[in-house]
Amino acid sequence: MKKLINDPANVLADALNGVEAVHASTLVVSRDPDFVRRIDSPVAGKVALVSGGGSGHEPLHTGFVGPGMLDVSVTGAIFASPSANQIHDAAKSVATEAGVLFIVKNYTGDRLNFQMAADLLEASGIPTETVIVNDDVAVEDSTHTAGRRGTGGTVMVEKIAGAAAEAGKPLAEVAEIARSVNKDVASMGLALSSSTVPHIGTPNFDIGPDEVEIGIGIHGEPGRRRIKVQPAKELLAELADAVFDDLQLAEGDRIVALVNGLGGTPLIELYVMAGELADYCKARGVIIERSVVGSYVTALEMAGCTITLLRVNESLLNLWDAPVSTPALNWKASDRAASS
Amino acid sequence: MKKLINDPANVLADALNGVEAVHASTLVVSRDPDFVRRIDSPVAGKVALVSGGGSGHEPLHTGFVGPGMLDVSVTGAIFASPSANQIHDAAKSVATEAGVLFIVKNYTGDRLNFQMAADLLEASGIPTETVIVNDDVAVEDSTHTAGRRGTGGTVMVEKIAGAAAEAGKPLAEVAEIARSVNKDVASMGLALSSSTVPHIGTPNFDIGPDEVEIGIGIHGEPGRRRIKVQPAKELLAELADAVFDDLQLAEGDRIVALVNGLGGTPLIELYVMAGELADYCKARGVIIERSVVGSYVTALEMAGCTITLLRVNESLLNLWDAPVSTPALNWKASDRAASS
Repeated sequence: MKKLINDPANVLADALNGVEAVHASTLVVSRDPDFVRRIDSPVAGKVALVSGGGSGHEPLHTGFVGPGMLDVSVTGAIFASPSANQIHDAAKSVATEAGVLFIVKNYTGDRLNFQMAADLLEASGIPTETVIVNDDVAVEDSTHTAGRRGTGGTVMVEKIAGAAAEAGKPLAEVAEIARSVNKDVASMGLALSSSTVPHIGTPNFDIGPDEVEIGIGIHGEPGRRRIKVQPAKELLAELADAVFDDLQLAEGDRIVALVNGLGGTPLIELYVMAGELADYCKARGVIIERSVVGSYVTALEMAGCTITLLRVNESLLNLWDAPVSTPALNWKASDRAASS
Repeated sequence: MKKLINDPANVLADALNGVEAVHASTLVVSRDPDFVRRIDSPVAGKVALVSGGGSGHEPLHTGFVGPGMLDVSVTGAIFASPSANQIHDAAKSVATEAGVLFIVKNYTGDRLNFQMAADLLEASGIPTETVIVNDDVAVEDSTHTAGRRGTGGTVMVEKIAGAAAEAGKPLAEVAEIARSVNKDVASMGLALSSSTVPHIGTPNFDIGPDEVEIGIGIHGEPGRRRIKVQPAKELLAELADAVFDDLQLAEGDRIVALVNGLGGTPLIELYVMAGELADYCKARGVIIERSVVGSYVTALEMAGCTITLLRVNESLLNLWDAPVSTPALNWKASDRAASS
């Protein structure tokens, strides 16, 4: 194992030092319990958005904290859920009388701990709603998951719910919008290599020098099948076929697309995949209204990518285009968000 | 070799398809000759900024095309200079009567071809200036280079010269500012792994499972020495010692820092390095005014990082903070650019 780290047990703590140093003007880093919140939170009258989960998926979630997106990111150990108390303390630090929306990726540990945190918060009189993100169409159940896994769709949910909250919408409506995004978003990924959890020190899985895992999870969970490496066009079709099928995308449908690197894949390859996705959609009459290309939901240093497609109407697109100011997504309304 | 590509000979062309599809509202992609320009260029009365070089370093340079930074990026084949005619055509497509500034990384092929292009442009009556970026302090001469190599400092030169040009400053002054940035910026990198040029198909160099190349070049050129892997704190000190020494940084100096991934290193490791850099600077009384953390100047899928430090005064800092709207760097003046 060769990584830019100190003690493998302290990777998250050391990375939070970096976050604190780099983003001191916009974010506040809490330790023990660990979480990262907007410097101006709680924002009076605004529904607070709380997300988080295991670390190792950066910039998710900490890179999405800021005006127009999350109020706080709860950072668990690498690939491990934050604790219920940690989530509760994080939520309490940003909660307002308008309530708290928890955005939770569908992993068993996260669901349990976020649920306990929500119960604690409710008990202290703060209204809460929870939306579970389960956009990964690869497999129905998986390691650590009952039902589908949550992955790139989380970025869409956090961005759009964040815009709705920023616009002053009430908790029930922000939650409803978040759930509608989850209903209309789907993802699928592939891996060319494994990643290695620092405190474990050996790769999560073995993969041959000419093999690709189709339907990989962001913790290295098995996908649908193992194939020999193929040209990008065919690999893209493997992913897009599954996503199109799940969303029942049809001619004339409008989408927002995320072509996402898993941590070890360079941008030039992601743009090759983005070009193939554009051709794929054009051939089917599906209109990509906005695209983001880059590494947003990663699996440590895994090589590979995921694609996430969200069916949008004018209202969702306006929320997508609304200003956002976070370390990883940052645009003005006038940018129209056509580029990442 | 396992990559998300089609024909290894067409990686750049396929990636430009992606750029064209994703950034259609802000960028125009030209083919044969290949270059990527601002959709609103030429911008009347503004000095045009032209940069480019071999591909494989994305987002450099195409990700830095837009208001506040470059007018056009000239995309050579992977790790190979664009041709003189290609650079000339690209520059001509954005040139104004205010003239053209060429920003050229110090590699022999790039220097020759950009010089020929500048001569051609001058011959047609357009005033030009050229700034050579040679910020990499690792080694004095290198493969393909006489003198020091150009690397992460290019981002600083392009950002600050871009802001000066956008502010309407004349060619001579923009060039002088660009040269002053180059004089006060220094970089040094390390590699944990090699990268593989697609049309070659084998790694550029061999490196053992516990080895780190200190002073690596962004094409895999040899550095200063090969060491055994060490904790991030020691690796950071290897890089920072060299940069501090070169810039003669002293207590009270103010800097802008770039902690840059080389393509295969995940963000969590870069934040660990950013935390170490913050500690290193604090111990020496050097003030990091702004930081950017991410993969901005890459070497295909190489694992590793570079650090780039720029000594700034109030005037350079204001130019750094000026608004920029490109795929890879995007901030409003009010963001104060304290985060990436």
